[in-house]
Amino acid sequence: MFQLLDIIGTMAFAMSGALTAMNKKMDPFGVFIIAFVTAVGGGTLRDIMIGRTPVGWMLDLKYVYVITIGFALAIIFRKKFDRLRTSLFLFDTIGLGVFTLIGLEKGINIGLHPIICIALGTMTACFGGVIRDILCTEIPVIFRNEIYATICILGGAVFFLLKKFNLESDALYLITSLVIISVRLMAVKFKWYLPTLENK
Amino acid sequence: MFQLLDIIGTMAFAMSGALTAMNKKMDPFGVFIIAFVTAVGGGTLRDIMIGRTPVGWMLDLKYVYVITIGFALAIIFRKKFDRLRTSLFLFDTIGLGVFTLIGLEKGINIGLHPIICIALGTMTACFGGVIRDILCTEIPVIFRNEIYATICILGGAVFFLLKKFNLESDALYLITSLVIISVRLMAVKFKWYLPTLENK
Amino acid sequence: MFQLLDIIGTMAFAMSGALTAMNKKMDPFGVFIIAFVTAVGGGTLRDIMIGRTPVGWMLDLKYVYVITIGFALAIIFRKKFDRLRTSLFLFDTIGLGVFTLIGLEKGINIGLHPIICIALGTMTACFGGVIRDILCTEIPVIFRNEIYATICILGGAVFFLLKKFNLESDALYLITSLVIISVRLMAVKFKWYLPTLENK
Repeated sequence: MFQLLDIIGTMAFAMSGALTAMNKKMDPFGVFIIAFVTAVGGGTLRDIMIGRTPVGWMLDLKYVYVITIGFALAIIFRKKFDRLRTSLFLFDTIGLGVFTLIGLEKGINIGLHPIICIALGTMTACFGGVIRDILCTEIPVIFRNEIYATICILGGAVFFLLKKFNLESDALYLITSLVIISVRLMAVKFKWYLPTLENK
Repeated sequence: MFQLLDIIGTMAFAMSGALTAMNKKMDPFGVFIIAFVTAVGGGTLRDIMIGRTPVGWMLDLKYVYVITIGFALAIIFRKKFDRLRTSLFLFDTIGLGVFTLIGLEKGINIGLHPIICIALGTMTACFGGVIRDILCTEIPVIFRNEIYATICILGGAVFFLLKKFNLESDALYLITSLVIISVRLMAVKFKWYLPTLENK
Repeated sequence: MFQLLDIIGTMAFAMSGALTAMNKKMDPFGVFIIAFVTAVGGGTLRDIMIGRTPVGWMLDLKYVYVITIGFALAIIFRKKFDRLRTSLFLFDTIGLGVFTLIGLEKGINIGLHPIICIALGTMTACFGGVIRDILCTEIPVIFRNEIYATICILGGAVFFLLKKFNLESDALYLITSLVIISVRLMAVKFKWYLPTLENK
């Protein structure tokens, strides 16, 4: 189940990356790299920072295949994405939840402090998109009033709060991902956003 | 003492990052990440490149706390920074000296060549700012005629020169940081800058 | 022989980086860093991702010296590069071939899957240029219709195909680099390029 959600999330991230790259009129190689980086960039950054090398996607070809399929689908259906927007948004939100949990888990496995684990979860879920935006020379969208990373941080906090009550692992994962997914859906539905800060 | 200077430098770097991010009208999450990256980005890059993982700030929560305080102060006093500019500049200069020394030391500890140690010192002190500028989609300011990195290189050269005379560690550190700090102050006071190179 | 080609490629990459930086009117420090990053950035990224640390150029000062010479030559001859363009292009193409092979080899040495090895070869040869462009706040040129990375992927595929026939190592290396170099020369001569993908 978790494996399946990981695949769905990876594919959604790859497709969103491919779409951004096509908006920038890149060639197929550029589109593929942006798709790849959006999908696995956050986890790669996490693995590098905690010293888990070779990084994850080099040891499990599943990711290369899933991203290649996502890339191909994005190209084939590139004129029809307006109609697919809702599905893609749902899949992307699943990715947000799953990737946060994977990041949290990697941190816990090597005994890092909960605050750092939450940082790793947020990095896993959000920093593929940051690298995507930088490679497209845009200021990362999650730094500008979209509530996105904040939801991962909230999810991580809920996770460690529930962990104190000795919930079993499965329930813990389920509740945390449901919190992340539902807050994200609400944030978009009710147009919650963070204010920008200005110093002028 | 050194610990205290490290904290002062980290906070100054975090505040300067937060101010840059607010100039770009980011939201609080973006401002926090830019503050964080400006403060620990150089050291993180260094740790990753020499294989010192998990990277430093993941093992010592002090940095997270100091950056959070710097971030909060930058937001609270964001309208009053013109008056605080001189103090912030001083603290930033202290950071430049301390971070260079920390980078030098990490390289020496694992037996790298002095030239590489100087590169690590410069990276520690200056590349947080490079990552900050890239995340704000600006060409890094230290690549454009501000004398900044050059001072770290000079400081590193002085360090290894004095080391040949078997100076004791404390004196070595003190003199190197004084050289970096005073040259930086003079560079700003007397408006020293590097010429730009053009090929047209 | 291979050593010599590695040096030629490194110098060519450093010079192309220096020229790009001078187009952006950077100061000497900025020009040096861009030269450095263009030359060793791809290999550094590869080493970090596979956990080969301290990264290559920190353990072999040859690269620092070669890049410094390339940097100095680029500055001295900066007004005369139009006449040198053909030689520089040839050297750059040698670098493309050699760096791809070095990347492939590092992946094979630690037992990674051929697909991942090809990714490492391409990363080694092409991602120094990606980092160069990002530091200059440009969308990476290899993501926009220049056939460049695609040739490395092709070269890697040829390499593993020939390897199946139990060719000896020397012949394998020679043929692969000749394929990369000649396809690159033809791509430029006959103006082969990848189409851009648009979703509008």
